[in-house]
Parts: sequence; structure tokens; C-alpha cells
Amino acid sequence: MRLAELSERSGVSTATIKYYLRERLLPPGRRITATQSAYDEEHLRRLRLVRALIQIGRIPVSTAREVLAAVEDDSRDQLSRLGEVVGALPHGPEPDENDPATAVGRRTATELLRQAGWQFSLEIREEFPAFRMLVAAIAALHRLGYACDTAHLLPYARQAAHVAVADLDLVEEFTSPTEQLEAAVALTVLYEPVLLSLRRLAEAEESNRRFGQGS
Amino acid sequence: MRLAELSERSGVSTATIKYYLRERLLPPGRRITATQSAYDEEHLRRLRLVRALIQIGRIPVSTAREVLAAVEDDSRDQLSRLGEVVGALPHGPEPDENDPATAVGRRTATELLRQAGWQFSLEIREEFPAFRMLVAAIAALHRLGYACDTAHLLPYARQAAHVAVADLDLVEEFTSPTEQLEAAVALTVLYEPVLLSLRRLAEAEESNRRFGQGS
Repeated sequence: MRLAELSERSGVSTATIKYYLRERLLPPGRRITATQSAYDEEHLRRLRLVRALIQIGRIPVSTAREVLAAVEDDSRDQLSRLGEVVGALPHGPEPDENDPATAVGRRTATELLRQAGWQFSLEIREEFPAFRMLVAAIAALHRLGYACDTAHLLPYARQAAHVAVADLDLVEEFTSPTEQLEAAVALTVLYEPVLLSLRRLAEAEESNRRFGQGS
Repeated sequence: MRLAELSERSGVSTATIKYYLRERLLPPGRRITATQSAYDEEHLRRLRLVRALIQIGRIPVSTAREVLAAVEDDSRDQLSRLGEVVGALPHGPEPDENDPATAVGRRTATELLRQAGWQFSLEIREEFPAFRMLVAAIAALHRLGYACDTAHLLPYARQAAHVAVADLDLVEEFTSPTEQLEAAVALTVLYEPVLLSLRRLAEAEESNRRFGQGS
């Protein structure tokens, strides 16, 4: 298809598509004439992913380029590519090593992985951006004097394990390894607002059950 | 306690505390002399909450002021105050009513609440910022061509219900209605990075189980 059709089918303007092509977020089309190129279904799929990362995930262009490079790197096995692409997504502030609360956060996070039985995460924890994000989040709770011991956190880890099963079931609906990686990135980013809004709705529901007039 | 002690015990600089006082995020202290005031445990608790909202939740000062006003408004019952304070927290972009995907998002979100049996949320859905956030999130998934029907979303709603039970258990560890409201706000904000990082760790764990060498 030509650029105009790619724009129409994706809902992304031709100016934005040209920008993504210049920034190497999209592979170049097949050159037809000196001024025209042809694009295929793979371009359309990739364009959707770039949109998800940049517009919904609010990920900087340079980070998006890193994530996409990891998606395409088929020199490695699927698991390490999957780890790399999800690891390259933004993770919020890094833990502050000068803050004593960080040591508490690290100890609690490690003990939590142990109690949850997450052997794989436990082994690779320090290279894992999501682990450092967890350390920083627990440190913040601790510093502000809110409950954050493993007894309080373990129910959340158990629920996260169920969510991950649903996530991977969605990813496995795709067949090729590259499509699975694209889906893993897109769904990790796009389902975050779904999870957070469902939690707030469920909190309202549970509050009504506990504090409502009818209770 | 004097300002210096409040600063030491909270880890917040005296300059920042003075700024929060000027912005009416903290109630004034009890005046002792023309230049000095005394602060109590309630100031310390409130200061922690303001820190959680502004530093971790990255909430603008004006929004934080609105949230705190709702916490203090004891003219209404606990449930409607709780709804108000959590509702005042930032919720991401509003749904775009000119986008046909928004109609799909709204229909799917409504059907999801019905299937999850969330009767209370269903009744008040359109006034509920978290519902509009869910509509926008489902619309984005739909527009980008990713799976987002109720069959895919229902497992996430079920997990959110379990998370909400853990959330409300934490809130009910506090005794006074005002402390419970403060905790509800702080824990909603502070546990979001915990939930998102645990999900990514659980995804790594589940990927290793499905795609790893040992499987």
C-alpha cells in the first residue's frame, strides 16, 4: 500500500509517519519510484505499536527505538528478548542509594520474591529494572510510615501472578515470535491504565460493601 | 513540636514545609510567639500524605489541595468522602468523544462492570473518573487492534476485586475516619508503582516458566 493508505488504515497522519520513518521507528518501505514507496501489513502492525508506546505509554522516541531494536534482534532466544524489551520500558525513578529507606526496600523486596516463590526473578533481580522500581516504591512507603512489610505485600504479589498468567495468555494468541514480542510490549503498556482504573472501580465497589448505607 | 523538629522527623526541609503552609496544604500551627508556631502529630501525618501525593504521585499542588479538602469535609458520610478523594486523584486522559473507538470502549466497559457484578460502579459510572479512564484505555486498545473484549478483560476485573479487598484491609487498620481517608489516598497512589512493578516481575517469572530453557 502507498503512504496515504497506510495513514488512512492506521489513523496516523502522513506527516507523523514520515517523522517515524526518519527516526527509524518504522523500517523503510519498498522503493517503487524516486518519490514513492510501498508499505505492507508489517508496517501497519509496527505503526500501531509505535503509537501505543509513544502516545499511550508516553515513552520518549529514543527509548521506543531501543525497545524496537530488542524486538527485532533475533540472534537471541525468545525469553531473553522478552526480558530485554519489557526491561527497556520506562520504570519510574531509580532507588536513591543514599537513603537508608532504600536498604529496607531492597531487603523487603528480596524477601517478598522469596516468599512468592519467584526463583527466576530472585536470581536476576539486580539487573532487572522492575525490581529496582519495586525497591524504590517500598522505600517510599517505608519513608512515609505506611505498611509495607512482606505480610502486607504478599497478597499483591499473588494477584500479580494471576495477572501475568492472563497477560501471557494474550501474548500467546499471536503466532510468530516477533508478533508475540510486539504484543508483549504493547499489552504491558496499554493494559497499565486498564489495571489501575479497574483497581479504583473495585475499591469503590468494596468501599460501598463495607461502608455503604446498605451494609 | 517546632518547625525544625517537624522538618527533622518528616525528612522535609523547613523551606518546603513553609511553602506547603503558604499553599494551605498543611493547616497552620498553633501560634506561640510572633514568629514561632507549634506543630503536632497530625501535622506530621498530613505532611507525609502531602509528600506522597506530590513527590510520588506527581500530583499538581492545586489537585492535592482539592484532595485534602475532601479528606477534611466531615459534613458527609465516609463512603461519599472516600469516593470524592479517590475521584479527585489524576486519572490520565479523558476519552475523546469524537473518536468512534470511544463508543466501543464505553459499551465494553459497561458490559464488563455488569459481568463482574459491580452494581455500585455501574450505577454511578458516568460521574466516576476511573470509569472514564477505563473507557479511554479500552478505546486505545481497540483503535490499535489489540484484544479488548469482555472475555479478555474479565480476568483482570476479577484480580482487581481481590486487590481492592487487600487495599481496604490496609485502610481499615486505621481507626479514625479521617486517618482512613488519608490512608486510602496515600495507599492508592503509593501502591500503584508496587502493583505495576510486581506485574512486570510476575510476567518475567511466567515467561520463564513458558519459554525458558528448563521448560
